[in-house]
Amino acid sequence: MYGMSFTEDDLAETLRKILAGDHPGVRLGPGDDAALLEPSRHLNVLTVDMLVEGVDFERGTTTPRDLGYKAVAVNVSDVAAMGGSPRFGVVALGLPAGFEPGWVIELYSGLREAADEYAMAIVGGDLSLADQVVLSVTVTGEVPDGGAVTRSGARPGDRIVVTGALGAAAGGLRLLQAPAQSVAHAMGSAWARELVAAQSRPTARVGEGRTLARCGATAMIDVSDGLTRDLWRICRAGGVGAAVSLDAVPVAEAVERLGEVMPVEPLVLALEGGEDFELLATMAPDAVEGAAKDLQERFGTRLTDIGEIREGHGLVAVGSAGSERPLEPRGWDHFGS
Amino acid sequence: MYGMSFTEDDLAETLRKILAGDHPGVRLGPGDDAALLEPSRHLNVLTVDMLVEGVDFERGTTTPRDLGYKAVAVNVSDVAAMGGSPRFGVVALGLPAGFEPGWVIELYSGLREAADEYAMAIVGGDLSLADQVVLSVTVTGEVPDGGAVTRSGARPGDRIVVTGALGAAAGGLRLLQAPAQSVAHAMGSAWARELVAAQSRPTARVGEGRTLARCGATAMIDVSDGLTRDLWRICRAGGVGAAVSLDAVPVAEAVERLGEVMPVEPLVLALEGGEDFELLATMAPDAVEGAAKDLQERFGTRLTDIGEIREGHGLVAVGSAGSERPLEPRGWDHFGS
Repeated sequence: MYGMSFTEDDLAETLRKILAGDHPGVRLGPGDDAALLEPSRHLNVLTVDMLVEGVDFERGTTTPRDLGYKAVAVNVSDVAAMGGSPRFGVVALGLPAGFEPGWVIELYSGLREAADEYAMAIVGGDLSLADQVVLSVTVTGEVPDGGAVTRSGARPGDRIVVTGALGAAAGGLRLLQAPAQSVAHAMGSAWARELVAAQSRPTARVGEGRTLARCGATAMIDVSDGLTRDLWRICRAGGVGAAVSLDAVPVAEAVERLGEVMPVEPLVLALEGGEDFELLATMAPDAVEGAAKDLQERFGTRLTDIGEIREGHGLVAVGSAGSERPLEPRGWDHFGS
Repeated sequence: MYGMSFTEDDLAETLRKILAGDHPGVRLGPGDDAALLEPSRHLNVLTVDMLVEGVDFERGTTTPRDLGYKAVAVNVSDVAAMGGSPRFGVVALGLPAGFEPGWVIELYSGLREAADEYAMAIVGGDLSLADQVVLSVTVTGEVPDGGAVTRSGARPGDRIVVTGALGAAAGGLRLLQAPAQSVAHAMGSAWARELVAAQSRPTARVGEGRTLARCGATAMIDVSDGLTRDLWRICRAGGVGAAVSLDAVPVAEAVERLGEVMPVEPLVLALEGGEDFELLATMAPDAVEGAAKDLQERFGTRLTDIGEIREGHGLVAVGSAGSERPLEPRGWDHFGS
């Protein structure tokens, strides 16, 4: 394998030390057949995401620490999109023959860093060999009974709101994938660093999700595969349509700057880019102002009204002059062309 | 991808139908950002296992239905080894470009079949592309507070017991991997079918695990990587040693038959073969008889006393004449030579 006499048990024990700590609710952490965890009296939330090398990330453009961090954050984002809070996680990791133990240790340090950031604990895992790095993280969480928000509750007349700004993660990916020479002059700038950070260290909006749930969100999803694709999922789940005011879509400032040095359309990145992990929600018109004020005061997070839910199905884009055209639900599809 | 206009969302919806049903405790199943599940008042159990094509299975020698079944069963076995019962599962699946939708549907049918068998529900998942099939299943369960059995409680003087018989799963693997011509005469026999079934459709000992816990098991593990390796883990976790009476080790009858047609040593397969998913436990000497009677009466499952826990560390094999020699903890190691 990698030169040393290092067994699966040895590596697992090293990784357990990285995850160790006195975590509330953990009766038994990694190292046994399974973890033992104190029950929650709230509804349980359960979600899993798999990140595959060459598909979801490249080892050349991501550090193992960022990869570990992101693998946790994207799952926490799914819990946040239900209005919940994360509690525990387990990690299954496939590694190519000849991997560097140091690389794996960095990966686990990133997992731990994100777990600490979101006040949760990684309590177990499994190691295997694979042709490429495959990282599957499962996260459990909790949400008060009656306080969960699903994708399916949008009603005609609801406003469509989104947290933060969009397009930065996709912009960061374009920057990382561009020929180094062509973007060398930009890489040191604050806006370029912001784009790369949005791609490699996404923020899960846990507090914002709970607040939106409390403020009466009728449907919610995290923007993982692109605004139009994820909004289309809300529409499909609720049996409704949506109209998006293109002028209102909050495009990340740094993406506008990227548009000045690369042939990218900032609005298209914001609509279709994905991986922003902002929360997209629907709510009654009279709930929007209070929710926006709450998010701003408690988290410094902007909430933008970008359109309305309508009867029917499918998406339309509303231009500045009020003209409407169909809006295709484009975005990330693992099996798409 | 595979010629049709079949998106990730389309495939996910087809797979959700396979998993659908009125499952107790499930408020929201697959199809949203996360599942919503009613809490248990017992301790929660959480475990994950990743199966990788070319490492843990071959597509040529396993059917997708068996693969799905096994992926659930091996996780349920981990829950059983804590003395717990499974409740819910989530599945992350990486698929090579060009995969057959029918293959994936069969895989999910196997996941569903095992979930029904073990009275649990698959409540969510994630799909991705990968160079090889990678299947990561996470299972949650519950165990009464105070009723969980870990790997670490073995005490000097405890007896070592194991359920069922060993070596059949490894025997089945040898049979599947042998040149077809060399084993053609054996393949139709009942013992050969038994070996292949042990490999492709392992049984998780849920009821047996709960019974052993109630009968006072001090430590427990499932035999996934081989008896000696898993017993060594119990010894390491408990800071103790173990003596195994080789004559007492229950070798599966079908493995003895295999030894007549292939150059395999039945006892070695039983000691080091792995994937039997029998339960290996330790308990006070006076608890063994009652536990064995209980398992026989309730489940028709044999419990065999194979040795004793001692002070010190490491394993020794005790021969029929009472002679002792060191017993190496050999067995499956993903990163081993």
